[in-house]
Order: sequence, then structure tokens, then C-alpha cells
Amino acid sequence: MASGLKIVTIGGGSSYTPELVEGFIKRYDELPIRELWLVDVEAGREKLEIVGALAKRMVKKAGVPMEIHLTLNRREALKDADFVTTQMRIGQLAARAKDERIPLSHGVLGQETNGAGGLFKGLRTIPVILEICKDIEECCPNAWLINFTNPAGMVTEAVLRYSNIKKVMGLCNVPIGMEMGIAKLLEVEHSRIRIDFAGLNHMVYGLDIYLDGVSVKDRVTDLLTDPNNSSFVKNIQGEEWAPEFLRTVGALACPYHHYYYKTPVMVAKELKEFESNETRAEVVQRLEAELFELYKDETLDIKPPQLEKRGGAYYSDAACRLINSIYNDKRDIQPVNTMNRGAIIGLPAESAVEVSCVITKDGPIPLAMGELPVPVRGLVQTIKSFERVACEAAVEGSREKAILALTINPLVASDQLAKTLVDEMIEAHKEYLPLFFK
Amino acid sequence: MASGLKIVTIGGGSSYTPELVEGFIKRYDELPIRELWLVDVEAGREKLEIVGALAKRMVKKAGVPMEIHLTLNRREALKDADFVTTQMRIGQLAARAKDERIPLSHGVLGQETNGAGGLFKGLRTIPVILEICKDIEECCPNAWLINFTNPAGMVTEAVLRYSNIKKVMGLCNVPIGMEMGIAKLLEVEHSRIRIDFAGLNHMVYGLDIYLDGVSVKDRVTDLLTDPNNSSFVKNIQGEEWAPEFLRTVGALACPYHHYYYKTPVMVAKELKEFESNETRAEVVQRLEAELFELYKDETLDIKPPQLEKRGGAYYSDAACRLINSIYNDKRDIQPVNTMNRGAIIGLPAESAVEVSCVITKDGPIPLAMGELPVPVRGLVQTIKSFERVACEAAVEGSREKAILALTINPLVASDQLAKTLVDEMIEAHKEYLPLFFK
Amino acid sequence: MASGLKIVTIGGGSSYTPELVEGFIKRYDELPIRELWLVDVEAGREKLEIVGALAKRMVKKAGVPMEIHLTLNRREALKDADFVTTQMRIGQLAARAKDERIPLSHGVLGQETNGAGGLFKGLRTIPVILEICKDIEECCPNAWLINFTNPAGMVTEAVLRYSNIKKVMGLCNVPIGMEMGIAKLLEVEHSRIRIDFAGLNHMVYGLDIYLDGVSVKDRVTDLLTDPNNSSFVKNIQGEEWAPEFLRTVGALACPYHHYYYKTPVMVAKELKEFESNETRAEVVQRLEAELFELYKDETLDIKPPQLEKRGGAYYSDAACRLINSIYNDKRDIQPVNTMNRGAIIGLPAESAVEVSCVITKDGPIPLAMGELPVPVRGLVQTIKSFERVACEAAVEGSREKAILALTINPLVASDQLAKTLVDEMIEAHKEYLPLFFK
Amino acid sequence: MASGLKIVTIGGGSSYTPELVEGFIKRYDELPIRELWLVDVEAGREKLEIVGALAKRMVKKAGVPMEIHLTLNRREALKDADFVTTQMRIGQLAARAKDERIPLSHGVLGQETNGAGGLFKGLRTIPVILEICKDIEECCPNAWLINFTNPAGMVTEAVLRYSNIKKVMGLCNVPIGMEMGIAKLLEVEHSRIRIDFAGLNHMVYGLDIYLDGVSVKDRVTDLLTDPNNSSFVKNIQGEEWAPEFLRTVGALACPYHHYYYKTPVMVAKELKEFESNETRAEVVQRLEAELFELYKDETLDIKPPQLEKRGGAYYSDAACRLINSIYNDKRDIQPVNTMNRGAIIGLPAESAVEVSCVITKDGPIPLAMGELPVPVRGLVQTIKSFERVACEAAVEGSREKAILALTINPLVASDQLAKTLVDEMIEAHKEYLPLFFK
Repeated sequence: MASGLKIVTIGGGSSYTPELVEGFIKRYDELPIRELWLVDVEAGREKLEIVGALAKRMVKKAGVPMEIHLTLNRREALKDADFVTTQMRIGQLAARAKDERIPLSHGVLGQETNGAGGLFKGLRTIPVILEICKDIEECCPNAWLINFTNPAGMVTEAVLRYSNIKKVMGLCNVPIGMEMGIAKLLEVEHSRIRIDFAGLNHMVYGLDIYLDGVSVKDRVTDLLTDPNNSSFVKNIQGEEWAPEFLRTVGALACPYHHYYYKTPVMVAKELKEFESNETRAEVVQRLEAELFELYKDETLDIKPPQLEKRGGAYYSDAACRLINSIYNDKRDIQPVNTMNRGAIIGLPAESAVEVSCVITKDGPIPLAMGELPVPVRGLVQTIKSFERVACEAAVEGSREKAILALTINPLVASDQLAKTLVDEMIEAHKEYLPLFFK
Repeated sequence: MASGLKIVTIGGGSSYTPELVEGFIKRYDELPIRELWLVDVEAGREKLEIVGALAKRMVKKAGVPMEIHLTLNRREALKDADFVTTQMRIGQLAARAKDERIPLSHGVLGQETNGAGGLFKGLRTIPVILEICKDIEECCPNAWLINFTNPAGMVTEAVLRYSNIKKVMGLCNVPIGMEMGIAKLLEVEHSRIRIDFAGLNHMVYGLDIYLDGVSVKDRVTDLLTDPNNSSFVKNIQGEEWAPEFLRTVGALACPYHHYYYKTPVMVAKELKEFESNETRAEVVQRLEAELFELYKDETLDIKPPQLEKRGGAYYSDAACRLINSIYNDKRDIQPVNTMNRGAIIGLPAESAVEVSCVITKDGPIPLAMGELPVPVRGLVQTIKSFERVACEAAVEGSREKAILALTINPLVASDQLAKTLVDEMIEAHKEYLPLFFK
Repeated sequence: MASGLKIVTIGGGSSYTPELVEGFIKRYDELPIRELWLVDVEAGREKLEIVGALAKRMVKKAGVPMEIHLTLNRREALKDADFVTTQMRIGQLAARAKDERIPLSHGVLGQETNGAGGLFKGLRTIPVILEICKDIEECCPNAWLINFTNPAGMVTEAVLRYSNIKKVMGLCNVPIGMEMGIAKLLEVEHSRIRIDFAGLNHMVYGLDIYLDGVSVKDRVTDLLTDPNNSSFVKNIQGEEWAPEFLRTVGALACPYHHYYYKTPVMVAKELKEFESNETRAEVVQRLEAELFELYKDETLDIKPPQLEKRGGAYYSDAACRLINSIYNDKRDIQPVNTMNRGAIIGLPAESAVEVSCVITKDGPIPLAMGELPVPVRGLVQTIKSFERVACEAAVEGSREKAILALTINPLVASDQLAKTLVDEMIEAHKEYLPLFFK
Repeated sequence: MASGLKIVTIGGGSSYTPELVEGFIKRYDELPIRELWLVDVEAGREKLEIVGALAKRMVKKAGVPMEIHLTLNRREALKDADFVTTQMRIGQLAARAKDERIPLSHGVLGQETNGAGGLFKGLRTIPVILEICKDIEECCPNAWLINFTNPAGMVTEAVLRYSNIKKVMGLCNVPIGMEMGIAKLLEVEHSRIRIDFAGLNHMVYGLDIYLDGVSVKDRVTDLLTDPNNSSFVKNIQGEEWAPEFLRTVGALACPYHHYYYKTPVMVAKELKEFESNETRAEVVQRLEAELFELYKDETLDIKPPQLEKRGGAYYSDAACRLINSIYNDKRDIQPVNTMNRGAIIGLPAESAVEVSCVITKDGPIPLAMGELPVPVRGLVQTIKSFERVACEAAVEGSREKAILALTINPLVASDQLAKTLVDEMIEAHKEYLPLFFK
């Protein structure tokens, strides 16, 4: 890392890239990035060029000596990289729309990281990530792979089990969002809040909550169950939890838990979006089109404020602060997806978990979180089982294991429906599932 | 046990009792029962008298010197007992009907041992079982408590965690039924089949299957997935599994797994029964009325063949062979509900599990079954979490924990619905839930 | 196994072989052995011929149709075998004498299975066993490997970790001897005693003791600590334990525990033997010479009673009853060395342990023994660490790891002494340690 | 903690107290201590007065508004304390001398925290600590108890298992000393070194070593095994390790490991001290006498440099930085003795371990260290077993368990010798072992 860092962003043509670039610019003093390589595939060439040009204008405007490189040649980009971030979407938003609409057409949740949608995003993504791992092994064996690509838990599990890469972390903005929400609830600065996170990606719990280092878990529970806060809480968390649940479950649930503990409400909500062609992918496709129109504007040289509507809030913050802590051996506490190593008792020591870690130059060291509260232990195991079976299906190209994965997933819970969904979705995503058509 | 055994059957007025009596008569040479005490409560007095009179006629006809005692005084009966069996139903079949119909009226499974029905049967039963444990401590501290009362897993968990009784086992006829089914499939005698059982009550898996001691797991999978066997398999298992599931799940599922891996089919089926007033409790109420009419016939002195339709096949066999193996230190292998002690890696060492055990005079020693297959690990944990939260709700009389239990149960999976169900069912079962109305 | 069994005994020229032959003859009705192949190496040819001739006379006298084959060609013998037993001694008794005398010359225990002697026996034996495993894989992949060769725990560990053989058990006569001792103490038949065994080979504990299936652990402790029984106990166990230790340790120790809990006494005893050239190997060499003289007698056609003095009492019984239970799917309880699978909580699930098992046609299933008592947990872990490091040293031919193994062994407990011992012993056993001289 | 902190030091008359006072003075800006209460017992009154007067002069000289209070009334001192530190020595140095000399008179190690000496220091100290815990519960339930009293691991274990105090940590200067040693070896500032610590008190290992966040474990091993560094290494570590051991053991041992991996050398060394009346306690008694002479000097108003010879280097630093990190929620990494919670796989989750932790206002959170290297796993378990049996002996006043504790301790390893030692030492320490004379 002699004369500044080399960072490679795979899926660099993403509409999020300006977030990342802004984050790097802001932290340039601490994190002297010499080269940022944006890599994409042929199908993303146009977006890459648009977003790359904007990135160059942003850097220029900021006056930092960061080179922006655009390429479709992944291996060229990876050469001697220090950090590789992955934020690609195999099959673009069109594939995501299928992940959402096909399950919903059968009356079950269609969602990017959970249930049938999550499975298929995983099946498309895992073989590509494992190819990237092979390239990293050869081109930049000392680099850290920081994966933002969903489903981040499943992807990290696959890298840990099926690649030779050890320096990998999965990153998600859900935990940071939970901290922000609590900060709002308590009307304090985010920096004064710390949460002990433990669980899986999009299945993470806050085991304790601290304000200035002192537990405020009971106070938070009181605020969350106070009927006067109802609309505010709904605003923060999307949905409200039954107070009886909040008072007994023993941990702060994350927004994705709504799918599992409020299944009928969530299905109803998404079916409505389905019927009005307003599923998330469909909305995002329109948002993205607008964003790229903005990005094309050659006078634009900052991250446009409209990007925040796109979702993925705090993403840039989470990513940049992680890279910064590694680079500078900050030893601060951040939640990442990493190998469990016993940090969460009862989950496999060698599996990927999402857990509060100390971030050192040598990587994350998970904090020992003990056992999960009894009420949540089972669901986390179920989803870990689902992820592991899904990984096997992905690397083997096994239709049968894909069916198994959905049968044991509580959002499907039906062998027959699993079969129907898998057959229909394999066909729909044929182009991106070569292992299933060997 | 000097001059013969004293056995106490709590819930002795059950229609099953003739099964048990027949089983004891058949095994009298090995298992010399001196006294069989049938205990019931005031509400069951008439049934107790009918079934007791039949039992006396059966014993007389068989010519074995077994005394039959009938009483409503539990402590009198327990005095110096060697074995206590429990098969009571708090609230009788009328309560079971509510356990079935209330959930179904909200579109979710209503069933005696699973989901909302199972929770409420547990909430009614656990405090009574813990009272019985106190009586056993005082009246017959050396007795074995053999629980047949459903939900047997939850009840055994409660005894292990909340009583001072160590000599307890839960017994179920599901595993023996699975062995019988496999024997039929392979067209061999039951005695030649052995299954390695591991899991929880009504959530047990066959990890391996042996014919004459040699694994035939693959052969069984082939037979179960052979389309030519379809109707036969359906006959054995009630429902057919998708072959893709059977080939990959890595264990033989039990019939109750249909509720979790074929949820929509099972809900649809039960809703039909609900609409035609043919839920299981309603059917059984009619069957029982007929049975008790038969039992009243003073010329009847054997178990009437109609009893077999009642369900609970192999019950007597399972119970008598268990008591026999303890009494005679047989050291044979039988599946029971007992403390895990590490037999199933990943489940709490001190929790109740259903597992193949060697049955010795000193009780069951579980066989080390290792880890459950990855695909089934999560569901088992989820149901164990559900059982543990349900036990806490029962002993504390906690409405909030009852709501939590249903929220985390995959058959409900909704905090709002959990609330609705719990409030409605607490009210419906008010008479039998005194702790909830302190 | 159509027309009778084929059994192969590697190290067939051992003086123990007549024990085994007698055992097989006695059980012929249940265990129809068609062929018994005795295999040895060139250095053991003479003994093989003597003992083989005796075996043939024994079979003839007994009138059983068992063929005895003698060979130096191991692969020929292994072809299609059903059971392979190993009882070889690499380097014969001369090597054992060095294992005993070299450590004693430095003031620490010299013993065949513990400390420096045990390490070196392991280093010589493990590579040979792994060669045998390769032959079994090719010549008789369905055979059971039953290892009697010491150090049996270390050897089983090596087979489990470094070979492809899954059907392996280690067998030892220590547990059966402990049962016999307890039977004598209680003045009852051996068959009425059962002990729950858990630990490692030559490091096994009796966690509970049953007479007719009922725990008599407290009674046994009382008898063992009764001063009136002193000489009797010493007779059974070789040494007496301090009553304070017996009453608090929570488990029945095995004779080899004397080395760890009575180290100074045992060292003193062996040093005396060392000085008078009466170490065990030296005594056994003389005993063997006498035995082989007897064996040569062509009129001898039974196992000579003098063999019992040789040690290894109950060996034949242990071995034959194990093979018998596998062959006949007896499902009785026997202690063997096998993969832990969670049977002993806290020891690695994939490591070899010595534990009570149900013996089925499909092999041993360990009984779940829970956690070892707190006081003994550490030593068992230490010896398991020692065994694992020793296995690594053996397969890698690593002098450094051999030194490490002795440094962490409590009988040496010195890095400097470990170095001295290893260097001297590698040289002394040079011929049998080819991997150390690559 | 509104207007500054209240700290109570039990055993305040210790010669170390000036270290602590100096540390507090240096950190006054960050750590505003309002009151420091030095508590001692009647037997220590004179020392308390001498050291207290010096403390007052030091504070005055430094010009910080810290009140020094001296008292023999523990409960008065504890009232509303924020931190309680314990550094008492039950029976003073005279008792320590017996802990050293009695075992050595029987040829085994006599040492303050290991073997027989460690056991007896524990037996005297544990009941007193548990009394202090009761006082804390009543007088200052929110205080942190920071125990420096040896044997710190055993004492922390006892507090965790036998008191109601949850806010407890044990602190030792061994880990900080190891870091200092490595810093010297690498010729860098201490602050640039970080070690992953895992194990038990005085039985801690460095699993990895980092310079500026990058692992330098291999480089350190090379330096430690380089013959050119020999005398330097000996200087740092007291004794040199065999290079073969260093290269294979997989972790950095601590100085106390010499007792277990270099037993004969250490015994010989101590026997020499024993014979010349130069055991540590005897040396320290003289040092202390000299120190207190110095302390009496009314012109002395700083920590006298001679104190450093007393041992306990870095003590003050370790203690003050720990209190500082709690008070200021620093979230830095420090090794302390705390509840394992799964941080070290294989050790009981509820036992005390010495492990790198993040220190927050809410206490230490251990870092997940995974499994200990195979070679060291056993010894750590053995010493944990020893500590747990010793704690039971202490709280029950059980001579038998004290004998058991020594029998299983590898430094004694003899039931007979254990008996002799225990009987002699109980008698020698009679005055301080009231529970043994009930």
C-alpha cells in the first residue's frame, strides 16, 4: 500500500457508485486512495460510462488526486488491488423483478434477499463471486474482498466454504440503519449509540443497546411500546411490532424480521404492489432511469441528492468506515458478516454470521455474544440451514437442492410450491444459471 | 418392587385404557403387575367407572392376579407406586375441539400438538403435570413417570426444567409407527427394522434405517420416490413427499412434518374438516361415544377391535415394552423423550429430545446421534424455542409469552394473529388456565 | 459373509493368538468362521509357524471346520476379509524394552502406552497401520478393522484422521478388567455388572456402575475406601487410591491412571524394575520364550493355562464378543474406541474416544455420556492433545512435533528432557522410523 | 458518578499502593477521582497508616483534589463506591512463605499462584472475597469489583460462581508484561504491539501477535529461536524455551508456563532458593521492610523508584488504564479475567478466562478467540478443573476436595503427596481457614 491504495469496485456501473465516491473523497485524508477501478460487464457498459464520467467530475471538483479507471476487464483491474468491493447484480434489475413477481404470482413473498427471490439471487450470484475469488487469488492475494452484493450472508457463506479467500467480509447497511433509528428514537447523535449485533445478514438482532456505553435496552423497549410513539416508530421501522412481542423477545429485531414475524401483513402489502406493478424492482427501475438521466448531466459534479431516495442509505458510510478501519487499524466496533469462530454460541463456528466486530488491520475479530435469546435461536438456525442448502444448490447447479432450500424456508414451507417455484424460476433466469443447464 | 409392581395411570378413564390393560395382560409373565390404579378427575368419573369395570372383566377373563383400583384420589393412588403413566386430557375433548377450531377460524392450523392448538394444550397441561410431579416426589419418589399426554415433548421439557423429578420419560407412538410403515414398505417383519431416531416429539427424524442391522436408507428412499409406490406410500404416510425433497433432506421425516413442509395442503385439508365439523376432536368425540357404549356391555371382557380406529395404534405396545425394558433391564433400543445430554449435537444438553435410547433399569441412555442433517437443523431448533417459550408461558401464566410463542411458531408467523389467537383462546379455555387469571 | 466368515489377524504370530483361537472355537455356533488368516512379517516367521501349528491342532481337536492359513503376504490374506484384527508389535519386544528403559534412564516413566514409551510405540505403529488401511481399502473395503495394537487410542485416532477407513474400532481389555474387578469386589457374576465407560484408551473412567441395572456407585466407593478391604483392593487394582480421592473424583479411575495420579510411586516402582532388568518387556520376553517352548509341543492342542500369566486377560473374550455382536447385530453394550460424535461433551466430535457403545451390525453407536466430571476433564483433554500431536508427528515424521508431544505430556513436562528423550529414542528405533530419516 | 469517582482499595496498606496512587494522579484529567479509600485489617494497620500518609503527601504534591481516606471499616468505605479494587493478602507474607516452603520441603513447587501454594492462597482468599461481594451487594451494588488479588483466576471463578456480583474483573500484569517483552524484542514502542490473549490467569497464551495491526507471529518465533538472541530472550522471559517447542506449540506461552513445560528446571531452581531461605516471600519480606522504611520518610512525596524492584511492574498501568476505559467507555482492547461466554471454544461458557476484551462502560466484551491450539488445550482444561475443584474446596471447607485438587494438579500428581501437603498446610494456615475447622 506504499503510495496510496488501489480499490476495485466490481459492479462499478451501479447507481450507488457516486455514494461510494463521495465517501472516499470525504475521507481522503485518512484513506489516501490512489486508484479506484470501476469494473462492469458488457451489459452494464453504458451505465458504467455514465457513472464513471460523473465519478471523474466529482473527484476533479473535490481536488483529490484519485484516479478513476473504467474497465470491462476484471483481471486487469484486480492486479495488486488492496480492496475489492462487489456490488454487482447478475441479470440487472430485470432479474430482480422476476425474483419478486414470480413468487408473488404464487402468493408467497417475492423479495430480493429472502424466500424464493433471495434463493435465486443467490443462485445467480454465487458462481460469479467464486469466479471473482479465483481471480483475486491470482491477481491480488493480499486484498480484502468486501461484499455488498445481496444476499450478502449467503454470498459470504459461499466464499468462506467454497473459495480459498480468507480475507472476506460481507457488509450491509441494516445494522447502521438500526443504530440511526434508535438514535432518532432517543433524540441523540448516532455516535453515542452502540448496539451488540448478532445473527445473520438481514436476520440480525440487537442483543443490547447502549447510550454513551450504558445499556438503555429497557428504555428503548418502553419507547417502542409507548402508544404515543406509534406513528414515529412505524416511520423508523416500517411496521410496528406488537408490544407483547417487543417486551418478551429479548432482542431488537431488524426490519427484515417483518417477513417472518408478520408474514400475512407483508404478503398482503407486496401483493398490492405486485398488482399495481409497483414491486421494489419496478420502482427502482424507474428511479434508476431518472438517476442515470441526472448522472448524464455534464455539469453535475457532486452526488445528486435524489440518490438518497434510491435506498441504501448509510451505505457509503458503512463501506468507507470499514475500509478506513482496516487500513488504519482503528480497532473500532462495527457489525460485519464474517466467520463466527464461536462468537454466537450454537451457530457453526465456520459459518458466516453478522456480528459486532473489532475491526483491525488484520480484519474483523467478532465479539463474543454468547447465546442468542431462546425465542430467536430457532429462526436464525433455520435461515442458516436455508443459506447452506442454497449455497450447495448454487455450486452444484442442483435443482433438487434448490427445491429443498425453499421447502425448509418458512416463507414457502411447501415441497409442492417449492417445486413449482424452482421450475418456473430456473426457466425464467436460464441465462444466468448455466450450472443448472449443464 | 418386592411382590409385584404397582402402576398408576392418571387419566385412567381414557378410552385407550383397554389397550394398556391388554398390553399388561399379554406381558404378565415378564411384568408381574400386582396393582393397576386408574385415577381420574370428577369430570371423568363416569368414563372411569365404565372403563374400570371393563378392565376388571378383562383381567378376570385373562386369569392374571392383577388388581384394578379406581379412584379420584391421586395421592392415595400414587403411594409407593413403581410406575406412573399420565394420559389425561385437561378439559376433555371439548377443549381439544376448541384447540382445533379457533385457529382454523383464523385460517391457520388447528391441531392438538402443533401451532396454536399445541400451545394451548400445553398451557392447560403443564401446571397439572407439575402438580403431579410434586405428588410423586412425596408419595413415590422412586417411581418412573411415563408421560403419554400430549404435547409430550413440551410436557417432558417442563418436567425436566420445572420439577424435581428426574425419572421421567415422554412416550409417543409416532416412531414405532414409522418403523411399522418402513416394515410394510419393505414387506418385512417390524422386528427386523431399526431406525436411528433424533429430533423432538412430533418433530422426529429417522437419521438412518436398518434392516437386520444393515443400512437400507438408500433403498427406502428409492422405494418412497418410486412413482409406482405412490398410493401405497400415501397410505403409509398420509401425504406424499416431493421426490426432490426426499432425495436431499437426508433423513426420514415423520407424519407431523407435513404441517411444516406442506403447510398450504394441510391447512386446506383441515379447513375442509372445519367447515364440515369433522375436525379430529369432533370425529373422536363421536368415536369415543360409540366406544364407551361398547365398553358398557357387561359381556365384553376383551379389548374391542373398534378401539383400533380411535388412533393411537401401537400405543399399548410402545408403553408396555418401555415399562418392561425398565423393569427387566432389557437394554434394548427404543425411542423416548428424555434429556438430550449431548446425544443430538446443537440442541441444549439439558432439554428434552426424542431420541433412540438404550433402555436400562436405571432409565434411558440416549445414543449419540451426532449433528442433525443441515436441512432439518433449523426447524428443530425453532420448535424447541417454541416449546421453551411455551413452558415459560405455562408456568408463569404469561399472556405475553404465549403471544411470543405463537409469533415465533412458523405455523402462525404473525405477531398480530398471535395476539388475536391467544386472547380468544385464553378466554375460551379460561376454566383450565387459572394462572392466566391470577 | 455367505458361507462363513473370513478373519485376518495381522501380527498373527503373537503369543496371544491361542487366546483368540480358543475364543473363536468356543463361539463357533454363533460365529461361523470359515477361514482364519494369521499374517506376520519376516522377523516373526518362526513364531508364526509355531503358533500357527498350535492353532491348527486346537481347531482340529475342537472339531470345528475352521481353516487356519499362515502367510507373510498381507494383501493375499486381506482379499475379501470380513474382519481384520491387528495385534502387531513393530520392532517386537526388543523395541518395547527400549520404550521402557530409555525414559527410565532419565528418571521418567517408561511404559508401552503412556509417556515417552507410548509416543514411540505410536510413532512406529501409525505409519504401518495406515499402510494396512490402504490395503484394506483395496482388498476388502467392507471389512471391519478391529485394532488391538497399542497405543490403541492413538492408533484409532490416526485411522480416523489419516485414512479412508470408516469401519474401525479400537479394543482394549482394560474396561472388561474393571468390570471383572468390580464383580469380584461385590462378589457377583461379571454378567450382572455394567459400567458407563467414558474417556480415552488407557485413560477411561467408569462414570457409573450398575449391578443388575441399578447404580451401586456409592456402595462401590464405600467398599473401595473401607480399610478392611485394603489388600483385596490392591490386588484388584494394583495400587490403592487415597480414600479422599475416591470419594470426590466422581468416577472410577482405571489402572493406568496410577501413572498420572500417583506419579512418584509409579516412577519409583518402575525404576526398581529398571535397575533389576525386570521391566515389563524384559519379563514378557522371558515369559514369551517359555510360552513358545510350550507351543512347540506337538501334543499341545489347547490354549496352555500358562498363557494367562502373560497379561492381556479377558482379551479373547473382549475381541470375540465384539466380532460376534457385529456379525449377529446383538445390540449389546460394549466399550470400544470409536469416533466420539458428541457422546462425551467437550471432546472433539471427530476424535477417537473409549466409550460404552451399542454394538450393531452397522458398527458401534456410542451412548451419550454427557460431560465428564469436572476433576477428570482436564487430564483427558491433555492426553487427547498429546495423542493428536503424536499422530501428526508420526504421519509427518516430525522430530519437532515429537518433542512437543512429550513437552505437553504430564509424565515428561519438560521441553529439555523431551528433546533429550526424542533424540535418543529416534536413534534407538531408527530402523522402524523411516519417516524421521527421509 | 456525578461529582467525581469514589474508589475503594481493599488491602490498601499494600506496598503497591503508591503505584496505584501515582497512576491515578497521572490520569486525573481523564479519571477525576474524588475519594480514594484505603481499607485494611487490624493486622495491617501500621502499614496502612504509613502508606496512607505517603499517598496523602503524593496527592498534595501533585496538586490534585483527590481525598485519601484510611479505614479498617470496610462497609463504611464501600458506601456508594464506583470501583472497588482488591489487593489483599490473607495472612500477609508470612502465609506466603508457608505456601512456598511447605511444598518445596516435599520436593514440589511452592509458588503463590500455582500448585499447592496457589491452592492454599485460594482457600484463604476466596471466603474473604465472597464476604466482600456480600458487602458490595449491599453498600455499592453498581460498583465494579476489580480484583488484583492472586490467584486472580481462581478468585474470579469463585466470584462468578458463588456470589451475586456480576460486575467483576480479574486483572493481572502478565499479559501487559508479555506485550512489553515483545516490544523490546522487536525494538518498538509498546503501543504498537497487540497480542490476542486467551487462556486462564497465569496460564495465558498469545494466539497471535501484531505490530501496527499486522501479524508478526512468525517473525517473533524466528527471533525467539535465533541462538543469537539467547541471552536477551532469557532476560525477557526468565527462561528460554526449546526452539522445537516454540516452533510447534502454536502460541506464545507466558512465564508461568515454565512451571508446566519445564518442571524439573523450575523445581531445581526453587529448591535452591528454599535451601538458602531465598524463596520469593522471603525476599519480598525484606524488600517490603526496606520499602516501608522509605515510605515512612515524611519528605517522600512521590513513588520511590525502589518500588519497581518489588515486582508487579506495569501493575499500576494495567489497573488505571482498565478503570479509565470503563469510566470513559474507551472500547479499547485489554486482557482481563472475565466470563468466557464462548470466547474460547471448549472452555465452559460461564467460567472465568483471561482473554482480550473490548472494555466498554458496560464492562468487558471478550473477543471471539475460537479454539485454542491443540497442543495447549489440555493443560488449560486441567488448570480450569483444578481451579473449579479448589473453589468448591474453599467454599465448602472441604479437606477432601483440597486433596482432590492437588491430586489432579500436574505439579503434584500424587494422591498421597496431596494428602500430606493438604494436612500439613491446613494445620499451618489454621488461623485463616475457619471453614476447615467448623
